[in-house]
Amino acid sequence: MMTSSPVRQFDETSITAAVLAKVGQGKDARTRQISEALVRHLHAFIREVEPTQDEWVQGIQFLTRVGHMCDQHRQEFILLSDTLGASMLVDAINHRGDSAATLSTVLGPFYVDEPPQYPHGADVGGLLKGMPLLVEGSVSGADGKPLAGAIVDIWHADEAGFYDVQQLDRLGELNGRARFQTGPDGRFHFWTVKPSSYPIPDDGPVGDMLRAQGRHPYRPAHVHFMIAAPGHAKLVTHVFERGDSYLDSDVVFGVKDDLIADYERRPAGETVYGRKMDSDYARLTYDFRLAAG
Amino acid sequence: MMTSSPVRQFDETSITAAVLAKVGQGKDARTRQISEALVRHLHAFIREVEPTQDEWVQGIQFLTRVGHMCDQHRQEFILLSDTLGASMLVDAINHRGDSAATLSTVLGPFYVDEPPQYPHGADVGGLLKGMPLLVEGSVSGADGKPLAGAIVDIWHADEAGFYDVQQLDRLGELNGRARFQTGPDGRFHFWTVKPSSYPIPDDGPVGDMLRAQGRHPYRPAHVHFMIAAPGHAKLVTHVFERGDSYLDSDVVFGVKDDLIADYERRPAGETVYGRKMDSDYARLTYDFRLAAG
Repeated sequence: MMTSSPVRQFDETSITAAVLAKVGQGKDARTRQISEALVRHLHAFIREVEPTQDEWVQGIQFLTRVGHMCDQHRQEFILLSDTLGASMLVDAINHRGDSAATLSTVLGPFYVDEPPQYPHGADVGGLLKGMPLLVEGSVSGADGKPLAGAIVDIWHADEAGFYDVQQLDRLGELNGRARFQTGPDGRFHFWTVKPSSYPIPDDGPVGDMLRAQGRHPYRPAHVHFMIAAPGHAKLVTHVFERGDSYLDSDVVFGVKDDLIADYERRPAGETVYGRKMDSDYARLTYDFRLAAG
Repeated sequence: MMTSSPVRQFDETSITAAVLAKVGQGKDARTRQISEALVRHLHAFIREVEPTQDEWVQGIQFLTRVGHMCDQHRQEFILLSDTLGASMLVDAINHRGDSAATLSTVLGPFYVDEPPQYPHGADVGGLLKGMPLLVEGSVSGADGKPLAGAIVDIWHADEAGFYDVQQLDRLGELNGRARFQTGPDGRFHFWTVKPSSYPIPDDGPVGDMLRAQGRHPYRPAHVHFMIAAPGHAKLVTHVFERGDSYLDSDVVFGVKDDLIADYERRPAGETVYGRKMDSDYARLTYDFRLAAG
């Protein structure tokens, strides 16, 4: 008995349906959905740009270099996602309708899990250099009620624009990063050093991409906050410095007007919490509201 | 003098235009075109699947694992491109209208540059195990005129379905891979061992993806050919074994009817080129035509 075999020769059009039929066999509906969408959009991208074989090889090599740049302290795929606006788009999709809550922004590649916990008022700058910075804040629900015992993780760069994990050989880890718990009034405060605007690490393939795209690699100065409290959505955000030159051209598209605050310059002398400063310092105050969730 | 600053708050829709404006600043028109298309399709994919933050993290981790799997002898991003049908789509786009030429298929991840050159009739199987295989072929232009001095690179797996570079500790490199030059009549022939169908390396993230998608990882048995001659387009292709179980479900979508040929089983005895075989062997014959280019 003869059976006719299928014609095995996909063309530019028919191959997409063939791949969709294969990737749609998984048991998990969400995996199927993501796989099918990935194939459709990836193929549409390829059809639009019609890469040469050499360009395909360049694409493979680019992604391989991005992967090889990733280690314990560097996440080049997050940089890629950030600089292509993908991270902020995912962020926007995941924070619809949190209008009473503080706005979120990118996590960035420099967060370190489980930073050391400090008491209020501690100086957590460690070996980082920069003008002293007093940070004060409060955490409340979207209804404005203070949240006691909220976990507040902070991390930031130094006056030269580098995080501790970018200068491990000189500083070791865990400078300018800390965890606090809000008091009964929902408040916290600590000392550190004032961060500067900085280029994202641009000595790798993402830096090469930015140069090819005619873009600068800078982010405006900011302190990162990750805030968690039971019964509330975790907040991942920054507070940017008003007046920074890069607020309108953040390379990762992370700036939102409501996240810009004064890093107010204050003269030497006694501070609000009693510490006596013998040099000028900066003072940042921000009140965070967490969405229910 | 006051100037009003722009509202810095991209939403799900407006962020794409903001990113496009940035990536469109490069000097090179092709870089601009690829960057803009990448951003549009990447954002469209994200808008369609609406990844959670956790799924975004999983995506970053998946790509990072793919990158970390890549080394001198393993190219997991090529496997990813192959298994998503991207490689064959690029191949189809780059071989429009070569109707008189031999069809192309994927390069695959196992090619090694500059394989050792052998004389016609050499046995290049090295330490690979399998039934002896005599491969004979000719190379001509699309007009059928023989091409003398064409460079023919070949590589293939063994009877267990593994390439030399997958068993380096046992075999070392350069078994079952070789370079020949066609003679004045455009012909070449060599001995090696018959390859088997095999799973692509599935102990990495691409294997995990295939399992999640409910797919097997197999490719039908084949010998790879890369053929180059001055004034002609380089041909990258395979010749598959007729009757293989996986011809209709090649995990990388690489099979085309015209690339299927008999690996004819022959009894022990004297062979066409005079070599005396004391066991059965297989014989493959294929005539390649190169497009002008």
